[in-house]
Amino acid sequence: MRPSMTNIEIISIGNELLIGKTLNTNASWMAKRLTTLGLNVRRITTVSDDIDEISTATKEALQRKPDFLITTGGLGPTFDDKTLEGIAKALNTPVELNEEAFNMIEEKYKAYAEERGLEKIELTPARMKMAKLPKAAKPLPNLVGTAPGVLIKRDKTTIVSLPGVPPEMESIFENSLEPILKRLPSKASFYETSLGVSGMMESELAPIIDRVMHDNPYVYIKSHPRGQERIPHIELHLSTTAKALVTAKNHVSRAIIQITETIQEKGGKITRFKTK
Amino acid sequence: MRPSMTNIEIISIGNELLIGKTLNTNASWMAKRLTTLGLNVRRITTVSDDIDEISTATKEALQRKPDFLITTGGLGPTFDDKTLEGIAKALNTPVELNEEAFNMIEEKYKAYAEERGLEKIELTPARMKMAKLPKAAKPLPNLVGTAPGVLIKRDKTTIVSLPGVPPEMESIFENSLEPILKRLPSKASFYETSLGVSGMMESELAPIIDRVMHDNPYVYIKSHPRGQERIPHIELHLSTTAKALVTAKNHVSRAIIQITETIQEKGGKITRFKTK
Repeated sequence: MRPSMTNIEIISIGNELLIGKTLNTNASWMAKRLTTLGLNVRRITTVSDDIDEISTATKEALQRKPDFLITTGGLGPTFDDKTLEGIAKALNTPVELNEEAFNMIEEKYKAYAEERGLEKIELTPARMKMAKLPKAAKPLPNLVGTAPGVLIKRDKTTIVSLPGVPPEMESIFENSLEPILKRLPSKASFYETSLGVSGMMESELAPIIDRVMHDNPYVYIKSHPRGQERIPHIELHLSTTAKALVTAKNHVSRAIIQITETIQEKGGKITRFKTK
Repeated sequence: MRPSMTNIEIISIGNELLIGKTLNTNASWMAKRLTTLGLNVRRITTVSDDIDEISTATKEALQRKPDFLITTGGLGPTFDDKTLEGIAKALNTPVELNEEAFNMIEEKYKAYAEERGLEKIELTPARMKMAKLPKAAKPLPNLVGTAPGVLIKRDKTTIVSLPGVPPEMESIFENSLEPILKRLPSKASFYETSLGVSGMMESELAPIIDRVMHDNPYVYIKSHPRGQERIPHIELHLSTTAKALVTAKNHVSRAIIQITETIQEKGGKITRFKTK
């Protein structure tokens, strides 16, 4: 990873992730999107629905000074939605009723009442909770669900909190966060491709990868055993990030030619070649 | 989470997780297994294949004094397998050839040579690398692949490093780690169940959940919106951990009766009820 890249940390919040009930597809979805935008996801941390755990993880992440810190989960109306309290605690700032967020939520429940033919849906404490944001936070509209996303600036880090429900997270990411990320001056291009290799053990490939990476210092090559060391089938993943996409592609292409030739010389076979 | 529980942290190592290429199924698989054993997974951290990142994450985790710190990924023969170097750096201890690990690996390549009808497979530096462990580490046999797992004790924490290839990780977990975890004196029983609820918004359920959790202090109830706030379908997940499984079941059962009755009184419908 190049130091000049935009660094991003993700904090995933939810007991369901720590008991193995739910796969962390949100972090993976975001990591892919962020990488494709040429940004560097440096760390993903998963913690429980606990104010202290959220606050500690947030403080630790802020100390590493990422450009963006994105959280998912814990924004809803129930008692266990504690993300904003945790972040407020980390920032040593109070949580207070945010007028803009309140208006968004009021509008939502007006619309829900209309859809259901009710005169009104009362703004109970549970519903008002979603309008209580850390001081100086900006709510991000949720077009799919109810709880708004939240954006807070602290020193050089922009903290963005998204809901845990995947369609809501994805929608706020695309509508509110992606436009900001696309405007970043340090934006770079990520390019990746993968090769399937059979007939060679991973330990035979190791010195070849070393050689090719030495000759192609910008390209990262990683081997993923898909069979077993004894019935070897290896996926080789080549990736790079460069200012321009054409440069990234050129770097990866040169490495692919060299590694393919070397593998074939040593008796290996390329079984698959996937660009994207 | 009860403070008396055995605390576990997981560190997942691999660039593929941070670029969104691979879903972190290993962490989820382990979290489920560990929770089922009555253990508390407190945090999951994902970092890249970088010695400093691995070392920093390891040091930070050790400062939180978990009973076990389990890492996955980065044990193989290639240059980017840096887990043991990262851990050694965190522990301020050297990496050195471990005789027991060397014997395991020598045996593996003898067997592979035999299977392929070769006289021998040479122990190249890439292959020897898998026998280089932090000082005072104990290798754990890998019945599926080549690189052994690694166990290191440091103060009150047992560090266990497992490979990233899922069948290898699972095999070493089951054969070497699970027997240790099952003997822990503080072992508890986890019990969980889930209900589907329709006809109520999550914000309507919030005060009901509060009430039932107040009356059932050992039971954790979490709502997962599966539809949208406006076309609501909510999964309610009830779980608890107790010394004896029968106590855990009793606690959850009482909470289920109360929450089901209240939901039905308020006009909601139970659409699904799943115990496991």
